[in-house]
Amino acid sequence: MLTPFRVDTNSLAITERLNQLGFDVRLKAVVGDQVEELAHVLESALTWADLIVLTGGLGPTEDDITRDAVARVLNLPVDIDEQIVDRIRERFARRGLTMPEINRRQGMVPRGATVLANPNGTAPGLWLERGRTAMVVLPGPPREMKPMLDAVIRDRLESRASGGLFRRVLRITGRTESDVDAAAQPVYSRWTNGSVPIFTTILAMLGQIELHLTAHAKTRAEADAALDAAQGELETVLGSAIYSVDGRPLEAVVGEMLRERRMTIAVAESCSGGLLAARLTDVPGSSDYVDRGVVCYSNLSKTELAGVPASLIEQHGAVSEPVARAMATGIRDRANANVGIGITGIAGPGGGSPDKPVGTVAIAVAVGNELRVRTFQFLGGREMVKFQSAQAAMNMLRLLLLKKDAPFWPATR
Amino acid sequence: MLTPFRVDTNSLAITERLNQLGFDVRLKAVVGDQVEELAHVLESALTWADLIVLTGGLGPTEDDITRDAVARVLNLPVDIDEQIVDRIRERFARRGLTMPEINRRQGMVPRGATVLANPNGTAPGLWLERGRTAMVVLPGPPREMKPMLDAVIRDRLESRASGGLFRRVLRITGRTESDVDAAAQPVYSRWTNGSVPIFTTILAMLGQIELHLTAHAKTRAEADAALDAAQGELETVLGSAIYSVDGRPLEAVVGEMLRERRMTIAVAESCSGGLLAARLTDVPGSSDYVDRGVVCYSNLSKTELAGVPASLIEQHGAVSEPVARAMATGIRDRANANVGIGITGIAGPGGGSPDKPVGTVAIAVAVGNELRVRTFQFLGGREMVKFQSAQAAMNMLRLLLLKKDAPFWPATR
Repeated sequence: MLTPFRVDTNSLAITERLNQLGFDVRLKAVVGDQVEELAHVLESALTWADLIVLTGGLGPTEDDITRDAVARVLNLPVDIDEQIVDRIRERFARRGLTMPEINRRQGMVPRGATVLANPNGTAPGLWLERGRTAMVVLPGPPREMKPMLDAVIRDRLESRASGGLFRRVLRITGRTESDVDAAAQPVYSRWTNGSVPIFTTILAMLGQIELHLTAHAKTRAEADAALDAAQGELETVLGSAIYSVDGRPLEAVVGEMLRERRMTIAVAESCSGGLLAARLTDVPGSSDYVDRGVVCYSNLSKTELAGVPASLIEQHGAVSEPVARAMATGIRDRANANVGIGITGIAGPGGGSPDKPVGTVAIAVAVGNELRVRTFQFLGGREMVKFQSAQAAMNMLRLLLLKKDAPFWPATR
Repeated sequence: MLTPFRVDTNSLAITERLNQLGFDVRLKAVVGDQVEELAHVLESALTWADLIVLTGGLGPTEDDITRDAVARVLNLPVDIDEQIVDRIRERFARRGLTMPEINRRQGMVPRGATVLANPNGTAPGLWLERGRTAMVVLPGPPREMKPMLDAVIRDRLESRASGGLFRRVLRITGRTESDVDAAAQPVYSRWTNGSVPIFTTILAMLGQIELHLTAHAKTRAEADAALDAAQGELETVLGSAIYSVDGRPLEAVVGEMLRERRMTIAVAESCSGGLLAARLTDVPGSSDYVDRGVVCYSNLSKTELAGVPASLIEQHGAVSEPVARAMATGIRDRANANVGIGITGIAGPGGGSPDKPVGTVAIAVAVGNELRVRTFQFLGGREMVKFQSAQAAMNMLRLLLLKKDAPFWPATR
C-alpha cells in the first residue's frame, strides 16, 4: 500500500460504515511494516481518537507486525492462543494440508484482547480498549475484513452510536454525466438546508453514473423518510434512466426482471468475448434464467453456434446490425429461450477501419416479436469497450422489458 | 478525502516519483481540516522523516489550514507576501474579475519559507527546512501539483538523491501463500545485506501470490543485474509456479504460449459462466487464437453445444470429471481447434450437496492426445469460485504446454 501501484479502497468501505454510526473519520494512515513506525502512529492516535481501526499485517510472515505493534503500544505481553492455532490447523486439514509452523504466529494475542472470529480466513481479529479508545484489528483482504467489521459494529459499536450519516446510491446508465447533472442539480441543490439535510455527489464511472445522497439524521428511520422523498424527486426528472436505488448492479436488476417474467435468456457474443454471460452469471440463482451463451469470435463460429447465414456476414460484414440481429434471434431460437442478445463489434486495439473504427459495436435484443438493434460508438480501450457493450446490451433489454425507449447512450463521460 | 467516495491517487504519483530518487515512502496520512490535527501528524513525522510532502489545503477559505499548521509546527510567524497577492489579483483581472479579499490568505508565507511558483493555479507552494527534514507544500489538484513536484525534484531534490528503488513483481499461481513463503523466504532473506540490497514482500490475492522485489541501487542497470540474479534464485526453488515476471496477467501468458505454438482454443464453461472466455479475450489480438466459447448452464445445452452424451450426465452427474472431459474434447472437436477446456462445477450459493459441496469444480484440458482432468474444492463466494475456476483452467493449460506436472492448487489463501 506504500508502493505506487495499490490504491487504498478498504478505508472507503470502513469510513462509510463508521460514518453511519456517527463516527467522524479524522485521520487515515498507511504505514510500512516496521513495528516502530506503526507504534508511532498508534501512540499518537491514542491521545485523541475514540476508535482506531487497523487492517492488515495479520498474516503468518515476519513482516506481519500489527499484533506486535499493538502489544508494544499498549505494553501487553503476547500469548499464543492454542484454540486459534487448532482452528487454523483444522482449516489446513480440511484441504488435506499440514499447517506450516509459521502459521502459529496467527494465534498470537496481546493479553486481555478479545478475539474476533474470521469466518473467511485464518487470521482472527482483535478488540482492545485503553481508556476512552477502542481498538479494532482486522485482516486486510476485503472479503475477510468486511463481515468482521459488520459483526464488530453490531456487537460492540452500535450501542455507542449517536445518529449519523445515512447514504443512498442511485445508479444510472445510458446518460452522460453533464446530462444527469443538468437534470438533477436543480432538484438536489434545494436539499442542503432541510430539517434533515441531504448532500449529493455525482460520480461518473465507465458506462454508469452514480448519485450519492448523504442524509444527516438522528435515526435511520428519519434518514430513510427524507431519502425516500429525495429519491422520488429524482425519479421524476430522471425516470427509467435510474436502474437501481439499493446498490444492485445492472446484471442483478435485469436478472430479477427475467425471473419475475419467468423468462430465459441466451446470448451470442463476439467482441464482448463472454463478458455479458460472465456478468449475468455473477448473480446467485442465475442458472434459473440463463440458458446458455456462445462466444463466436470467428465468422464460422457465428454460423455454427448462432445460425448466422454466411451470406449475411459476406453482404454486411461481421460487425453490422443485420448480423447482430441474426445472432440474437439465432441463439434465442436454438436455445428455445425467451430472450436473445447478439453483440458484434470491434474491441480494438486492432481491426478498426475508417468506416467502422475501434469501438463500433452493433447490439440486438430479441424478446418475442420485439426486436431492437442499435450501433454504438464506444470510446476507450479494449476492456472498456467490452464493459460498455455488456452494459448497453443489458440496458437495452431492461428498457425493452419496461416498454421504454432507449435514452441517449453516452459515448464517453 | 476522508469521505467514503474519494480514492487517493495523488499519493501514488508522488510515491512513484520519490521512489525513483531513492526516497522510501514510510507513511501516508490523510488528515482532516483542523489545524491541531495536521500539526499533530507533522510534529510526529518531523522526528524521523527526511522529507515531508503535503498536498492540498492551500485554497482561500477558512478550512484551508495547511499554511497555518506548518507555521505553527515550525513556530514561525506568518507574513502576507504582497507579490503573491498581486499575481493572484492579476490572474483574476485577466478573466475580467475582481479578486475577493479572502484570496489574500493565499499570499500567507511562514517567515523564511521559499515560495514555489504555481503555473496552473492561484495557490503557490512552499519549501521549508528544519534540521535534516525538508518540507514541500503543494496544492491538491493533480494538474497543479504534478508540474510543481517535477520542478521541486529537478531544482532541489535530485541533488540529494542517492540512487533509487527499482521493482520487479513475480506472479505465482497454484500454490498457497505459506507454501510459497516457506520455499522463498530462505532465499530472499539473504538479499537484504548485499551490495545491492533487495527487500521482498509477499502478497496473497485470490488464486494468485505475488512476490514484490525492491532493489536499492544507484542505477537501473545495477538494479536490473541484481534483480535478474534474485529472480533466477527464486525460479530455482519455485520453478514453473512462477508464471510472470513482467506484470503480465495469466491470460496474456497463456495467450502468448498459444500464439507461439500457432494453436487455437475453444472452451466450454458451466459454473464459470463465460469468465474464462472473457478473460482470454481481454488480451489484445486474442482473436488470433480464441476460436469460440460456449456457456452451457443447462444439461441440454451441454449436449447441444459441446456434444456431451446425455447418458454421461445421467450416469456421473453434470459436475464430474467424465463430463468435464467430454466438454473439453467435444468443444475442441466441434471447433476443430487445437485446445479444448471444459469447466463444470457448483459456484453457489445454492446447488451444493454433502457429496459435492459448493466450490466443487471439475476441469479438463485437452491438447492433441493429452488430456488432464482434475476436481478442485474452491473456497469463497460465487464470484471467487468463478475466478479460481478460470485461473486453475488457464494454469492447467500452461503447465500442460510446458510439460510440467500441476503443483498443488490452493483452495484458499
